[in-house]
Amino acid sequence: MEPQSGAPISPTPAVIFENLQAYQRTFALQAAIELDIFRAVGHGPGDVASIARHARASERGIRILCDYLVISEILQKKDGHYQHTPASAAFLDPSSPTCLASIARFLSLPVMRAPFEQLAEIVRNGRTSLPGEGSVKHENPDWVEFAQSMGPMMVPSAMGLGKLITQGRKGPMHVLDIAAGHGLFGIEVAKQNPEAHVTGLDWAPVMRVALENAKKAGVGDRYNMLPGSAFEVDFGGPYDVVLLTNFLHHFDPETCVGLLKKVHRALKPSGMVVTLEFVPNEDRVSPPVPAAFSLTMLASTVSGDAYTFRQLAEMHHKAGFSEATAHAIPMSPHTLVTAHA
Amino acid sequence: MEPQSGAPISPTPAVIFENLQAYQRTFALQAAIELDIFRAVGHGPGDVASIARHARASERGIRILCDYLVISEILQKKDGHYQHTPASAAFLDPSSPTCLASIARFLSLPVMRAPFEQLAEIVRNGRTSLPGEGSVKHENPDWVEFAQSMGPMMVPSAMGLGKLITQGRKGPMHVLDIAAGHGLFGIEVAKQNPEAHVTGLDWAPVMRVALENAKKAGVGDRYNMLPGSAFEVDFGGPYDVVLLTNFLHHFDPETCVGLLKKVHRALKPSGMVVTLEFVPNEDRVSPPVPAAFSLTMLASTVSGDAYTFRQLAEMHHKAGFSEATAHAIPMSPHTLVTAHA
Repeated sequence: MEPQSGAPISPTPAVIFENLQAYQRTFALQAAIELDIFRAVGHGPGDVASIARHARASERGIRILCDYLVISEILQKKDGHYQHTPASAAFLDPSSPTCLASIARFLSLPVMRAPFEQLAEIVRNGRTSLPGEGSVKHENPDWVEFAQSMGPMMVPSAMGLGKLITQGRKGPMHVLDIAAGHGLFGIEVAKQNPEAHVTGLDWAPVMRVALENAKKAGVGDRYNMLPGSAFEVDFGGPYDVVLLTNFLHHFDPETCVGLLKKVHRALKPSGMVVTLEFVPNEDRVSPPVPAAFSLTMLASTVSGDAYTFRQLAEMHHKAGFSEATAHAIPMSPHTLVTAHA
Repeated sequence: MEPQSGAPISPTPAVIFENLQAYQRTFALQAAIELDIFRAVGHGPGDVASIARHARASERGIRILCDYLVISEILQKKDGHYQHTPASAAFLDPSSPTCLASIARFLSLPVMRAPFEQLAEIVRNGRTSLPGEGSVKHENPDWVEFAQSMGPMMVPSAMGLGKLITQGRKGPMHVLDIAAGHGLFGIEVAKQNPEAHVTGLDWAPVMRVALENAKKAGVGDRYNMLPGSAFEVDFGGPYDVVLLTNFLHHFDPETCVGLLKKVHRALKPSGMVVTLEFVPNEDRVSPPVPAAFSLTMLASTVSGDAYTFRQLAEMHHKAGFSEATAHAIPMSPHTLVTAHA
């Protein structure tokens, strides 16, 4: 007998259909960025004709694309006019100082997308379909694009990291920023502590992006370059702080421990390592952004992962660090892990 | 001054990051179907090792993929074991009679996916980047794949359509099913009315799929084939009912009116046309599945669209029909529109 209180709710296939079509969300947002639609929406009045004129595009195409962006909760629509959501105003309109539309460039590189075409094969083999070491292969020029385009996304994380390091620590400070990329993490420390000197380590073509950013931020005179691979160059030192940002996720735990040991040797006895990572909860399925990052590592690396705090703490302890502690960062999907030498 | 009651909630870029990465959802679900993961989850016990054995895949790959499916709300995870959601049990497990995993085949065809790589260009031009008439080009063999793989998704819609037509209409009935595809709509009418005779119209290679389905349903002796293009062949008749399912969205309104006039001429004076479509609300951004379908039509056709009920009613009236009426279908993203000759 059915319970009197009401029939059970039947499942619908909507979630399946939506996931199978989800790729359209990516291409729609990318096309809208390319067509400069978010600037036009910001200017107003937001009707199809004016956006189409700005984008030099057909009205049919603009109407359908903008409706789709509303369905995707990126824009909103009122009385037939398209308007910014708070998120699109802050992060997609090129006239916003926090615009991060440039991240679409790195995220749509073939090195990021192509492996997904072979995802079943990747799951079978347990490693990327890219040759050799995958996305972290030596001197991969894609990391220049990363350094150039992903910086704006890292601003809240960099500010959180800078604050954590400089609070309660005044005076001269030597900082090593491993796999510096855009350099924003080390640069933020230099901005917040005028006596800090930062050494950025990355492949030479990437380092040039970081140095340019350091000069723009007015800290170029306290920014040194150490070009090369983190696994090969001598770190020098000793340092007060070593930054390991968005780097450990590319490697297996054993490799991470080896690198952390090398970091330990380059620190002063009172020194601290600061690791920034996508850190899922122990259930590995929440929060969504850090947890989903594991799939990107499966697709693009040989043995990388989004590690839980428990895993990261264990790596740090095996490398000789103590007091591994997690710190959430406001407005950022990243987590900081600090540990002492 | 900030209001005392609390600081305003700052926007986060999460929605932007998630949309730029949404393509991963598509590839993850497709890979899981290809690896037969949903059968393994249904069998239990749902631990990584047993799913990996069934899929002949690495444990690292299975763990990361299944976690991702949980994040995508397709599976659930309890105590480290993966379990079906109601939707994956009903619609993705091959042992379920309502499994529709086969739709992934049609939805991942190059004819569906490739245009999205040129979406900005398509928006500029207002039409598909595919040559000629796009996905509806003459005798496009992709519609054989459509007929073979999309049928299971149409079952609730077909049942709703069959019920609507046969309720209150007993006795002999001649039905023309235009662009029959898998044939399930006409077949359902024949199943629900043992005196109904159905004529399916589609390109010959597609018709063979429909006839096969009619035979399987036990109505092959009341199923006739009319091979060819709906715009070229003589419909014959007169018919009591003409079905126009998932067809008008490929064409501009003028072409739709022309086709509806041809339908009108093929109906008995008491006859009825039954149109099945993705019908968005007048705001064109809800409900999500029908409204989003416009983008698929922009990408793959010259001038198709997901039409609102007001637009469909106007087309029907211009073609000489009266009393155009919309009918929602339980468990289906489609809407039926009936009108009288």
